[in-house]
Amino acid sequence: MKNEDSLKRLKIVEGHLHGVVRMMEADAYCIDVIRQIQAIQAALNKVSAAILENHLDSCVITAIRGQDPSERERVLKEITDVFVAATKV
Amino acid sequence: MKNEDSLKRLKIVEGHLHGVVRMMEADAYCIDVIRQIQAIQAALNKVSAAILENHLDSCVITAIRGQDPSERERVLKEITDVFVAATKV
Amino acid sequence: MKNEDSLKRLKIVEGHLHGVVRMMEADAYCIDVIRQIQAIQAALNKVSAAILENHLDSCVITAIRGQDPSERERVLKEITDVFVAATKV
Amino acid sequence: MKNEDSLKRLKIVEGHLHGVVRMMEADAYCIDVIRQIQAIQAALNKVSAAILENHLDSCVITAIRGQDPSERERVLKEITDVFVAATKV
Repeated sequence: MKNEDSLKRLKIVEGHLHGVVRMMEADAYCIDVIRQIQAIQAALNKVSAAILENHLDSCVITAIRGQDPSERERVLKEITDVFVAATKV
Repeated sequence: MKNEDSLKRLKIVEGHLHGVVRMMEADAYCIDVIRQIQAIQAALNKVSAAILENHLDSCVITAIRGQDPSERERVLKEITDVFVAATKV
Repeated sequence: MKNEDSLKRLKIVEGHLHGVVRMMEADAYCIDVIRQIQAIQAALNKVSAAILENHLDSCVITAIRGQDPSERERVLKEITDVFVAATKV
Repeated sequence: MKNEDSLKRLKIVEGHLHGVVRMMEADAYCIDVIRQIQAIQAALNKVSAAILENHLDSCVITAIRGQDPSERERVLKEITDVFVAATKV
């Protein structure tokens, strides 16, 4: 459900990115291109956050309540991993 | 010249992003989608850096050597601005 | 336990930051100062990730297994929030 | 001149970081500690940006107007480098 919203947003980002490709083809000013790329990255951050929120509300709850400790560990480890990666991009 | 290379890379990112849209349509695992989005952001960082490098080697040098102090100021201000924005995405 | 390790690392960052203050007092080269600040930020990212990992392994598991749905929601919301903030610094 | 302001700000960050060390020693809530660390990183971003601005207004202008092409190249390369690093922390 919520991910349908994320999919919609991601398609909007796709359109935005295509616009930046065209800007570059039209030889737009460098700084303007960089600013648009940064706007795309900010939009992608929002999509990632929405997907994570959805994931926490579903898979993570299921795993933590489940009987499989290795599955639980895996799911929690993944969250730390995407957090670490998030601080690097 | 160098920006043609950036354009090519940006088109590759476009293809990558389209792949992620399809992943989401196919109901891929949330964490895998987030990881792909983070990979796209890392690729966008590289494109931005390449565009900035090109910009410094051309427009910035021209502006700084030019006779117009307000133009020089503007160009330098823009670099600080994209740096500030870069630390926020 | 694990947080004692994080505390130790944070104290090392404190020493590092004090070194950068001294560099600036000694009028060090701007770019070298910026690089040291970036190294400090990378170290802080690692401390945050270690604290989050510890938090997921303790409080989050307790909240999700607990009987209080609003507490569970609060705890999951916090994780999305720090993730969102992480993508902005 | 402007860097004196940066030095002052960096000392404030130092005080802030010391406060976070004490929070951890007092066994503060994990998420609160992470939030304070993120606030410190945001403050460090501002210090870096101010130092870069100062650097562009002085050394970079001098180098670009100077007669030494390798020095000019070096200075411009450094800016791209800190920009690349900024997108990773």
